[in-house]
Amino acid sequence: METTCPFCKDNINTAAFAEENGFLAIYNHSPILPGHSLVIPSKHISSLFDLSEDEISAFFSFARKVTSFLTKHYKSDAYDWSLQEGESAGQSVDHLHLHIIPRNPGDLPDGEDWYVKLEEQRKQKIDEPGRAILSELEYNNISQMLKEKWAEQ
Amino acid sequence: METTCPFCKDNINTAAFAEENGFLAIYNHSPILPGHSLVIPSKHISSLFDLSEDEISAFFSFARKVTSFLTKHYKSDAYDWSLQEGESAGQSVDHLHLHIIPRNPGDLPDGEDWYVKLEEQRKQKIDEPGRAILSELEYNNISQMLKEKWAEQ
Repeated sequence: METTCPFCKDNINTAAFAEENGFLAIYNHSPILPGHSLVIPSKHISSLFDLSEDEISAFFSFARKVTSFLTKHYKSDAYDWSLQEGESAGQSVDHLHLHIIPRNPGDLPDGEDWYVKLEEQRKQKIDEPGRAILSELEYNNISQMLKEKWAEQ
Repeated sequence: METTCPFCKDNINTAAFAEENGFLAIYNHSPILPGHSLVIPSKHISSLFDLSEDEISAFFSFARKVTSFLTKHYKSDAYDWSLQEGESAGQSVDHLHLHIIPRNPGDLPDGEDWYVKLEEQRKQKIDEPGRAILSELEYNNISQMLKEKWAEQ
């Protein structure tokens, strides 16, 4: 699986805007809302159950820091975390990942919500050309900007 | 807030089917799917940002154990975690809580998903009589059964 995993590509470390104790924060290629990011282990791990107790601590401690950073940067007053494990739960990429989505009042139309959008999007593979994704240039610019802001903290 | 908080009632410790290091696992009064439970701090804490680093570790380490237990007991091959903080994100009860939902293939009709159901349900207060909730007897029976299974591990 590792060779085809989009989170194990050579450039993933460059794309990441933050890193701590073996975990990376990356911007979502197809963000549902501004700031929608992922926290992933830098090594290929499918399941939360493959992490040691120390790694569990490192994962969620880092995820909280990333959430604080994103809500501040995107001027948001709330956030959603979602972790889906297993195909029945909607896990689209077989590499453990936690979605972090900054939220604001009225940021999604009534009756629509980020989870529905997430479900719609996962019908297409994460790097499939037909999917509405950020251009490489846009993506790199956002990642670079976040990397600089993260370093300034 | 504490006096009206449904997670701070006197009977919450009795309702909990598991407890570890200041965190409780409780069955959802209005489960979206069988096994839908919550992990909460036993003291009234609104935000993930009010937890110490040690508490973050304890929270997610315990949540993982509860997830392992629930997926085993409910014979599920997947799970969803959802944490919503702040009104814009859909937080319905001002006491930190992580939703754990065991999943199975085809467990929800096409086009419908647990998050949508969660959103529908939160329009009513968690203990409002009109809401489709388990009866006190049903709820107590499930909690007691889970408590015994947890102790047997």
